[in-house]
Amino acid sequence: MIPFNKPYITGLELAYIEDAVASGKLSGNGKYTRLAQSFFEEKYQIKKTLLTTSCTDALEMAAILIGIEHGDEVIIPSYTFVSTANAFVLRGAKIVFADSRTDHPGMDESTLKALITDKTKAIVPVHYAGVACDMDMIMELAEAHNLFVIEDAAQAIDSFYTSKSGKRYPLGSIGHLATFSFHETKNISSGEGGLLAINDEQFVSRAEIIWEKGTNRASFFRGEINKYGWVDIGSSFLPSEITAAFLWAQLEHVAEIQHKRVQIWNQYDSNFKGKLDSSGIKTPTIPSYAENNGHMYYLVARDEVQRDYILKRIKESGILAVFHYLSLHKSEFFHECHDGRELPFADLFSQRLIRLPFYMELTLAQVDHISQTLLDIVSEYEH
Amino acid sequence: MIPFNKPYITGLELAYIEDAVASGKLSGNGKYTRLAQSFFEEKYQIKKTLLTTSCTDALEMAAILIGIEHGDEVIIPSYTFVSTANAFVLRGAKIVFADSRTDHPGMDESTLKALITDKTKAIVPVHYAGVACDMDMIMELAEAHNLFVIEDAAQAIDSFYTSKSGKRYPLGSIGHLATFSFHETKNISSGEGGLLAINDEQFVSRAEIIWEKGTNRASFFRGEINKYGWVDIGSSFLPSEITAAFLWAQLEHVAEIQHKRVQIWNQYDSNFKGKLDSSGIKTPTIPSYAENNGHMYYLVARDEVQRDYILKRIKESGILAVFHYLSLHKSEFFHECHDGRELPFADLFSQRLIRLPFYMELTLAQVDHISQTLLDIVSEYEH
Repeated sequence: MIPFNKPYITGLELAYIEDAVASGKLSGNGKYTRLAQSFFEEKYQIKKTLLTTSCTDALEMAAILIGIEHGDEVIIPSYTFVSTANAFVLRGAKIVFADSRTDHPGMDESTLKALITDKTKAIVPVHYAGVACDMDMIMELAEAHNLFVIEDAAQAIDSFYTSKSGKRYPLGSIGHLATFSFHETKNISSGEGGLLAINDEQFVSRAEIIWEKGTNRASFFRGEINKYGWVDIGSSFLPSEITAAFLWAQLEHVAEIQHKRVQIWNQYDSNFKGKLDSSGIKTPTIPSYAENNGHMYYLVARDEVQRDYILKRIKESGILAVFHYLSLHKSEFFHECHDGRELPFADLFSQRLIRLPFYMELTLAQVDHISQTLLDIVSEYEH
Repeated sequence: MIPFNKPYITGLELAYIEDAVASGKLSGNGKYTRLAQSFFEEKYQIKKTLLTTSCTDALEMAAILIGIEHGDEVIIPSYTFVSTANAFVLRGAKIVFADSRTDHPGMDESTLKALITDKTKAIVPVHYAGVACDMDMIMELAEAHNLFVIEDAAQAIDSFYTSKSGKRYPLGSIGHLATFSFHETKNISSGEGGLLAINDEQFVSRAEIIWEKGTNRASFFRGEINKYGWVDIGSSFLPSEITAAFLWAQLEHVAEIQHKRVQIWNQYDSNFKGKLDSSGIKTPTIPSYAENNGHMYYLVARDEVQRDYILKRIKESGILAVFHYLSLHKSEFFHECHDGRELPFADLFSQRLIRLPFYMELTLAQVDHISQTLLDIVSEYEH
């Protein structure tokens, strides 16, 4: 069986954990946490970063930092992971769901303006499959309406956006805040894990406090105060040095990992390009301002029946391909709170998307085998 | 320098992490998570347990599960870690602080009844230093007033309470819910980590959902439903299998760890018993219904000046002893919300408590050295 995902080990993970153990510091905010944070700050031009136990937790920090209160509205895509919404719901926000683009599962930027009210507090663009949203459009809208932008960059490590001025920005460095995931399915992983990126200076000192359970422990360790105490709300958002050491071993190999993953992506894409047109199946679109970080290769079936047939048959052939999100505006939890707008493209991607196996150990020969198996299944279905 | 704490490694932590890596499953809720959870359920007679990324997160789950709403009151000791309070503040609760006992930093059970109002929703006893609160008194009060009891058993693994009926209960198995910590300073550690214990059946199925980001993924994996989706609020409370594998290696050695820690505790206690009376310094008291799980050895100085002198001088002698909590009702965050009641014993322990070095690798000869050094400092101070 070819699995959908398989964690990749660079080789130094256990040695770094051993080193953390030997250092006598296994709780959070030690050497490996700082190495990982500095790496992000330097390589991806982020003012300040804080490791978290998950991307969900990073989103919850963002919701606290922007001061979400009961009734504040937050605009997020319906086609996303539940945590994008739940992090704000936990703070009392009303979620306003945006539809997906016609050409891509990411949120349709052209629909956002109409969703803004005087209660809107933030927009949370999700860079689906690591492909940038149109950040010029979103940041301009946010500025015009005094909104915060929180990039959900869970899937978007080492991906970039080129603004209309021609400047190339790492994803996660553009919004006021941004969040990354190191869940096992991500390019860089620590099993579970995440990171909060802070680009707006005003959030830096409070973020440190919220991260450390609402205490001014960070100031204490810098020698700025004598005792640390309870100064704010907060949680235990920081991961252990065991997690950070594992993560650091992965980050050191980001170039090699990204090279291989983009290679896998390109191989899939060239195997399918031009060969699926008659079946109505579409290969991914990447807007000109975005780049491909090799996070995920997906196809969009003609309809749900065709999609389910392909998923079932490819599994019978020993290959695990999977669908992805279900529109959140139609979820059991939210459907009664939704304002009734149809979000047809969120539904379309819920019903039609197929994700193919994607992990470091996948060989190009396996990619060819998966591609051919899928092409054969499609051909069998169409005839 | 003898540190205050040093993480202990049983020897199999890295091998188990390696095994988790080889299994291809590093995100949460895998084999090691189940091993750790079953261990707690069986050894400590808990209906259902869920590993969390911290004790803080387990407390946050508890606050969600009991349905804390804005304005609900929760009674907790002032002398505790901020997370005991913050977990409930995050859900909108009003914290009502209880004083410590005269003979112990734990909450004074006799003061609780007067703190209950028609808005009180829960009592959160903290088993300070692993020493049980009077759970008969607390559970009876809770039953009479229809309150939930959440044991903050952060420090209380493998500790017990003997009820007046003579039955011996593991701490964490008595309240409707309970929380444990595996922070690096705890008897059993995974650097950062925690566990939610559920003793009241009504919370089990919702707890699984909240744990998995508000989705019914657990039901999905048990084959009860075809697709999982957004059904509730929730967060990413579960730790990775990296963390769980590390923890499992520790839990397998709990008997050996507890044996050694109790030995250290007894050695400190016999070194100090009867030798500090003239200085006004007190050794710990353990009520007859409680037991000692070797979590912490502390002394209570006569006053803050004496305490600070001892801490300073013992550090100069190469030994790191430390104070502990500061009364939360006087914190920068809360003091203006406090109802003005004096909580003199919470303040007393804030000002006078001294924690001595305590970790597995500490030899009994080092315990003797630390004890003698402290006795010499006290004698020097008194003369």
